Amino acid sequence: MTSSSASEPRPPDFAAVEAAAARLHGIAAATPLVESPALNARIGGRLLVKAECLQRTGSFKFRGAYNALAQLDLAARKLGVVAYSSGNHAQGVAAAAARLAMPATIVMPSDAPAIKIANTRSHGAEIVLYDRQREVREEIAERIAAARGAQLLPPFDDARVIAGQGTVGLEIARAAQAMDAAIDAVIAPCSGGGLIGGIALALSGTIPGVRVYAAEPQGFDDMARSLAAGERVRNDPAGQTICDALMAPTPGVITFALARRFLAGSLVVSDREVESAMAVAFSELKLVAEPSGAVALAAVLAGGIEAKGRTLVVVLSGGNVDRETYAAALRCG
Amino acid sequence: MTSSSASEPRPPDFAAVEAAAARLHGIAAATPLVESPALNARIGGRLLVKAECLQRTGSFKFRGAYNALAQLDLAARKLGVVAYSSGNHAQGVAAAAARLAMPATIVMPSDAPAIKIANTRSHGAEIVLYDRQREVREEIAERIAAARGAQLLPPFDDARVIAGQGTVGLEIARAAQAMDAAIDAVIAPCSGGGLIGGIALALSGTIPGVRVYAAEPQGFDDMARSLAAGERVRNDPAGQTICDALMAPTPGVITFALARRFLAGSLVVSDREVESAMAVAFSELKLVAEPSGAVALAAVLAGGIEAKGRTLVVVLSGGNVDRETYAAALRCG
Repeated sequence: MTSSSASEPRPPDFAAVEAAAARLHGIAAATPLVESPALNARIGGRLLVKAECLQRTGSFKFRGAYNALAQLDLAARKLGVVAYSSGNHAQGVAAAAARLAMPATIVMPSDAPAIKIANTRSHGAEIVLYDRQREVREEIAERIAAARGAQLLPPFDDARVIAGQGTVGLEIARAAQAMDAAIDAVIAPCSGGGLIGGIALALSGTIPGVRVYAAEPQGFDDMARSLAAGERVRNDPAGQTICDALMAPTPGVITFALARRFLAGSLVVSDREVESAMAVAFSELKLVAEPSGAVALAAVLAGGIEAKGRTLVVVLSGGNVDRETYAAALRCG
Repeated sequence: MTSSSASEPRPPDFAAVEAAAARLHGIAAATPLVESPALNARIGGRLLVKAECLQRTGSFKFRGAYNALAQLDLAARKLGVVAYSSGNHAQGVAAAAARLAMPATIVMPSDAPAIKIANTRSHGAEIVLYDRQREVREEIAERIAAARGAQLLPPFDDARVIAGQGTVGLEIARAAQAMDAAIDAVIAPCSGGGLIGGIALALSGTIPGVRVYAAEPQGFDDMARSLAAGERVRNDPAGQTICDALMAPTPGVITFALARRFLAGSLVVSDREVESAMAVAFSELKLVAEPSGAVALAAVLAGGIEAKGRTLVVVLSGGNVDRETYAAALRCG
């Protein structure tokens, strides 16, 4: 019997990331590392951009969702999956469920970007909207999952999800080896910590000694402050950012354990720096970055980490952005 | 002694494309084939997009330029290269010359997109601007090349340039084989015909029987009309299009010979269809397409070729576009 308590409380290990890579082979895209000589000159080092905006559903989230759902048996698949998400996890779960012929119900905030709601619906998922200020999405999702006996798939604090996102790190390590690049540091966006935790785990088994940093928007720097405090702290719920996918209130239990073990730190950027990074991704990389997807690039461009003479990898984690938001970033960036 | 007559008048053969691939290995990016399930559903077939906007300098032009210049001996390299171009060939030549430590002089129209002029200059090239309405760029370039004994590198009608662009076709064939995709047709943007000619040549040696189509903007459909007429015809010089890189007045001699031998036809699209394709590349592919880079995608989306149940490859050939032009396309597309 699957239920809302089915998510695994223990951190995944390196073998789980390798198993995820095998499950995703030929199903998720092996996204390229993109490089711009102009950007290299600008930072005085070498910058490799993991173009995860080119992933199925436009963000890395498909990896974790598929890795989790593909491990369910047929009876559990029939009961379906329920998820809550501001958008990218929603699309990832909806697409993974569709691929596995599972019913999917997604609880989304009513102010999520229209493109994310529309895309989630396009995968055949049922959408349940909620009010971000007055309702608790976890409660709504748990209620639906319990009523249906469906699998509740959390956005980040789940060993299977983390292992799936970790395949981004495996691909970085393998591509760097193929191009004979010695990587000094990897920086990836962080909300609840599933992506950065998975990447750090994957790199610990492939490039020991590489420094791994999270990147977060101002006002949602819970990982930076939690690492400093040695315990999970929460963001001010009144905070605002254009990074709609990075608004988790606090790191997960599993992801924070991974972060404490593996991360060198978390770099914090302003919305202005994010818009500027989106504009740079447009002009120098020809990649569409959503605000949340651009925070790691923003951290490097803003000088948050020493780049001179070093080889850095940033994960551009998604490209699901409304035209209006994008045009505004190009104007301001 | 190199001079303006140094360009080779004979078409390249398949072996020349393979030799170009060896020269470009590790220097040009092996760009990915990007796929969107939503786009596949929309066309009722399978669409693979060769993301050549991710190439060094933001377009495929680096391939041909580098393949040509890398074949010069050291004495010829020292005398430098001269090229005329609305922008992408300019950037390709400037970057290839910089890589080979050659001086480069680029003759550009004064109304070329600002980003293309700025980027060309950023590679260290000398820029000579001319008036598109009153001056003949070939004459200016030939005068400079003759005075300096420099190599004049034409934008398309040169066997070395065509062979270099043909590596796009080799990569398509190899990637399709790796993903076990049986390709029915390949469509690529066409101005003077260097890219489409090279691709058609490469595919003739790797996927015999595949149908290869050029794509052109309305008013600059000289390849379509030349194929129909059986001889090279010219565009009306008063024509206008947003596809600033596809305004060559007529096919080249070598490229037209390749086109007659290998092309199934040329598909013509409107500026409106191009803007719509740019918007689709933004929302579904997360790739920045410049107008000229989007004509092949536009041809498929506009129904210019049967897609139902077939596997098509379109080349998205470049992403060098001003922010204003891009924002306008997102509004209209």
